[in-house]
Amino acid sequence: MANIQRFHVGPRLSEAAVHNGTIYLAGQVPDDTSLDIRGQTAQVLAMVDRLLAEAGSDKSHILMTQIFLRDITDIDAMNEVWDAWIPQGHTPPRATVQAAMAKVAYKIEIVVTAAVATVATT
Amino acid sequence: MANIQRFHVGPRLSEAAVHNGTIYLAGQVPDDTSLDIRGQTAQVLAMVDRLLAEAGSDKSHILMTQIFLRDITDIDAMNEVWDAWIPQGHTPPRATVQAAMAKVAYKIEIVVTAAVATVATT
Amino acid sequence: MANIQRFHVGPRLSEAAVHNGTIYLAGQVPDDTSLDIRGQTAQVLAMVDRLLAEAGSDKSHILMTQIFLRDITDIDAMNEVWDAWIPQGHTPPRATVQAAMAKVAYKIEIVVTAAVATVATT
Repeated sequence: MANIQRFHVGPRLSEAAVHNGTIYLAGQVPDDTSLDIRGQTAQVLAMVDRLLAEAGSDKSHILMTQIFLRDITDIDAMNEVWDAWIPQGHTPPRATVQAAMAKVAYKIEIVVTAAVATVATT
Repeated sequence: MANIQRFHVGPRLSEAAVHNGTIYLAGQVPDDTSLDIRGQTAQVLAMVDRLLAEAGSDKSHILMTQIFLRDITDIDAMNEVWDAWIPQGHTPPRATVQAAMAKVAYKIEIVVTAAVATVATT
Repeated sequence: MANIQRFHVGPRLSEAAVHNGTIYLAGQVPDDTSLDIRGQTAQVLAMVDRLLAEAGSDKSHILMTQIFLRDITDIDAMNEVWDAWIPQGHTPPRATVQAAMAKVAYKIEIVVTAAVATVATT
């Protein structure tokens, strides 16, 4: 058996999987969809922070991030929040495209792949 | 040379690549596009099963999956088929967005990253 | 600290990250958006070549590629350029979907994950 650690394992999906020093997060969407793009982005990034912490990492260890926006013209407002959040010197590769998501009220969904910060002895 | 194993290598793409214990599958699309979303989903998931088996793994070792739906309102019907397929306790991180695909008749495309189940001695 | 090497580190994103023998590239978009789909594709693939070289790899070591087209009907013209570029016997898994990108003038964005070609002694 490969050594896979899963977090928040639900009946349909889990929120994170760790394998071979790499963390894969599920696409994160906002809880409060009444928020504007800035608010939804902040909420999603806070979720990423929490999940990375649980998996033994943090936002300075992101390897790749994919951002889906329901309306690509939200990109500047999203970037304001992103730029204030991402640690300088550790910015990750990123791709941002427009796509509709599971709920119409979702303005953003972020997918993160990261490195485990400290190698645990298994 | 890095040790990369490829499967079903065609002139444009291959269906799977294995490197460092991680399996990357090409986006899987249905063969029979006359099927409805349930039928197309079942067909794509069967393809994922076959490719993971060839690469030395199975659906309990998925690290991340990205699902593209031509029509995001198909998500509930897709989820019915997914929920019956995915092994409980091993559900993977997932992201689902709407996108048009290479052929208009494709209702779904699934991208899977997985762990090799058994570490081969190289 | 996990050993992550980043390339072209800007205030918002970096163009590449290397971790554990795997290279993650940012979504590559064309510089000259006045070009048609063939020209934009060629430009993006040349960018991929340059970044992979910097990160110690090349196009024969691609593990997965995701291609976003603003107009999915450009896929045949894009494939012409792709087919001439990708080395036979080393074609990677690939997924191609339609999506709008950061700028309206972008017709294509390509995301590449690759293996480091030579394992450096760290």
